[in-house]
Amino acid sequence: MKKYQELSREELLSLREQLLAEYEDAKGKGLKLDMSRGKPGVSQLELSMPMLDVINSNSDMKTVLGNDTRNYGDLDGIGECRRLMAAMMGVQKDNVVICGNSSLNIMYDTVSRSMTKGVNGSTPWAKLDKVKFLCPVPGYDRHFKITEYFGIEMINIPLYDDGPDMDMVEEYVNNDSTVKGIWCVPKYSNPTGISYSDDVIKRFANLKPAAEDFRIYWDNAYGIHHLYEDKRDEILNILEECEKAGNPDMVYIFASTSKISFPGSGISAVASSIENIKFIESQMTIQTIGHDKINQLRHARFFNQVTSLEEHMKKHADIIRPKFEAVLDVMEKELGGLGIGTWTKPYGGYFISFDSLDGCAKAIVAKCKEAGVVLTGAGATYPYGKDPKDCNIRIAPSFPTPEEMAMATNLFVLCVKLVSVEKLLEA
Amino acid sequence: MKKYQELSREELLSLREQLLAEYEDAKGKGLKLDMSRGKPGVSQLELSMPMLDVINSNSDMKTVLGNDTRNYGDLDGIGECRRLMAAMMGVQKDNVVICGNSSLNIMYDTVSRSMTKGVNGSTPWAKLDKVKFLCPVPGYDRHFKITEYFGIEMINIPLYDDGPDMDMVEEYVNNDSTVKGIWCVPKYSNPTGISYSDDVIKRFANLKPAAEDFRIYWDNAYGIHHLYEDKRDEILNILEECEKAGNPDMVYIFASTSKISFPGSGISAVASSIENIKFIESQMTIQTIGHDKINQLRHARFFNQVTSLEEHMKKHADIIRPKFEAVLDVMEKELGGLGIGTWTKPYGGYFISFDSLDGCAKAIVAKCKEAGVVLTGAGATYPYGKDPKDCNIRIAPSFPTPEEMAMATNLFVLCVKLVSVEKLLEA
Repeated sequence: MKKYQELSREELLSLREQLLAEYEDAKGKGLKLDMSRGKPGVSQLELSMPMLDVINSNSDMKTVLGNDTRNYGDLDGIGECRRLMAAMMGVQKDNVVICGNSSLNIMYDTVSRSMTKGVNGSTPWAKLDKVKFLCPVPGYDRHFKITEYFGIEMINIPLYDDGPDMDMVEEYVNNDSTVKGIWCVPKYSNPTGISYSDDVIKRFANLKPAAEDFRIYWDNAYGIHHLYEDKRDEILNILEECEKAGNPDMVYIFASTSKISFPGSGISAVASSIENIKFIESQMTIQTIGHDKINQLRHARFFNQVTSLEEHMKKHADIIRPKFEAVLDVMEKELGGLGIGTWTKPYGGYFISFDSLDGCAKAIVAKCKEAGVVLTGAGATYPYGKDPKDCNIRIAPSFPTPEEMAMATNLFVLCVKLVSVEKLLEA
Repeated sequence: MKKYQELSREELLSLREQLLAEYEDAKGKGLKLDMSRGKPGVSQLELSMPMLDVINSNSDMKTVLGNDTRNYGDLDGIGECRRLMAAMMGVQKDNVVICGNSSLNIMYDTVSRSMTKGVNGSTPWAKLDKVKFLCPVPGYDRHFKITEYFGIEMINIPLYDDGPDMDMVEEYVNNDSTVKGIWCVPKYSNPTGISYSDDVIKRFANLKPAAEDFRIYWDNAYGIHHLYEDKRDEILNILEECEKAGNPDMVYIFASTSKISFPGSGISAVASSIENIKFIESQMTIQTIGHDKINQLRHARFFNQVTSLEEHMKKHADIIRPKFEAVLDVMEKELGGLGIGTWTKPYGGYFISFDSLDGCAKAIVAKCKEAGVVLTGAGATYPYGKDPKDCNIRIAPSFPTPEEMAMATNLFVLCVKLVSVEKLLEA
């Protein structure tokens, strides 16, 4: 295959004609597929159905320590569930607080609390003229929405294959006291699927923040979400590294079982230093009498008695892997060598990240939509929805079947080709 | 029985001696009872155990409209659950948003959002020099904790048998633009058990707030929590009354199933005007992808298919009523006519409110605690924990058994007598 850039104008024009015909044809097929959100597929949901039998009307509803999960109490979560999530997050039980059904909600609450009450006693951000967050890009749109909602200025930091540009991170964090946080998805990053290297994580732990209330917002959403058994990323434990570096309070770690049990009906947790946890609890005790302990008991018993997290995640991988491979196969076959796009081949997580020629992403997403395939909006992976190069597209292969994924990707690559040809013709 | 105030000094001294002996005797019994929180008793929790069989691994997990409750979606709650809560709250489905497991959490979020984002576009309260809330007293300690946490100044408003002192409420709300809210428990009020009269509710609906962002925080926590079938309070629908009065956006109504199904594992809801709901949702969509829909489905199916809210609440009443009566019987028998205390005799809710002689509440609570009976801390029913007359004590009869309640109340009345005698001797 020749690179598109090497084609003559005539070749491009004739290619365009051919692609247009194919596109019209594709539109006629009446596709209706969604690759927009990191939503588990139905067969993944089926994996957790036995969890719904773990607690029934004959169950002993008491925790190991004898507390009745059906009544008020245990603000920070029942012991067995804190232990479960601590093991998953690689921390000690006392460093973990179990919350509601959504780790996004904990992140929101964490930022919201900082706005009104500061961080462990610092000046509330709402009283400051300027608050900034660093945002490795491309990144997770819902992180950016939280900071945007609270009027926090977001600064793009390039995300490389081994993590964010740490020179830039150090420059900002160590010198600018208005920089109060950085959003990180350190493992199987959303959307590129990369994981932070040991060197990057050590540099994070050794930051010397100008602001006492600077924190790393470490969203370890895909900590155990591997696609392969033989190819896996593992990352350093950021809490331990921060402790070693004399920065024990510098990080909040977030996680949930949304993509382990049921999205929206799982449990979430935050892990941090005892000092930070105390401050978090001083707010939580005002906010609620406690979270859903029956669901905590359901999760603890299921993953301790019926299956293990490890076994359960292998079953998820077996379902998702073919979907990722379906996308990657089509991309390789149809776009390999054409010079009009690059894409990631992650070992875990929920996304494939695609970079088109500059200025093509919006048009590609629009063309796909017109023919019945919904992608995440172009730009969504950047703060304020603004991708400066208009080139990044997040692909979420988890929800459709592998066959549907192949169909959707065939349309996608067709749109990539068509838009790229038109771009080159206009150049 | 003679009133204590009519006893001679000698009579009081000899009575004190006798009471002290009884108290020493009671201390020896090693009681360990808790009347401090509005916590359902174990037999109430048993009532909802069949709910845990409603959803199991063989269940159809789809909503009536075909949405899979196991996956992301339905930010504002599944239709059948919105309908259930709307019926319970006396409003239309579209006026209701289903949230997580705690209505307290919704109230917290509502105040927190007002701090950072204002109310439907008004100036964020965090940017204002002064924000005040009116607090009918005695009231619910957790309401007061929220406003205290956010640095909102609280103003005591006397609560009478038919509701708050409306002259004072009107005076403040209609003239002081720093007054942004009022906490209300309009039915079977916490702790006095009174319900607002039609006249009071109409006056609420017809307020002419000086502040555009003034709202009534209507915590209808005990809307269907009657103790009797033949004696019940019913209150006017505040949302309808506000609409009629041309103040459609002036009220937020909160409710939950915490004392219907399981405390901490139930569902909560907020009801308001469409305009307010839109603004709430504009925040919720930043905060979470959605609440626990499997638990919503469990509640909707249980209360639609297995039992009805009405039937279920009758069973609760049959369990709680004897506990209330045990307390009231002992009080009447032991304190009737003595002139050293008055108490409420509610038709519903979770509390009995006791008023001692001025300056005695703290001492009574301390004496009870010393002998093994825990009451809600004296002062807790007032903002900042400060009961100006030190006379109000909240009694929560729901958790212990009726026999335990009788024992606990016997100790309580003994402490009331002892502390009152000492107070009169000191006078």
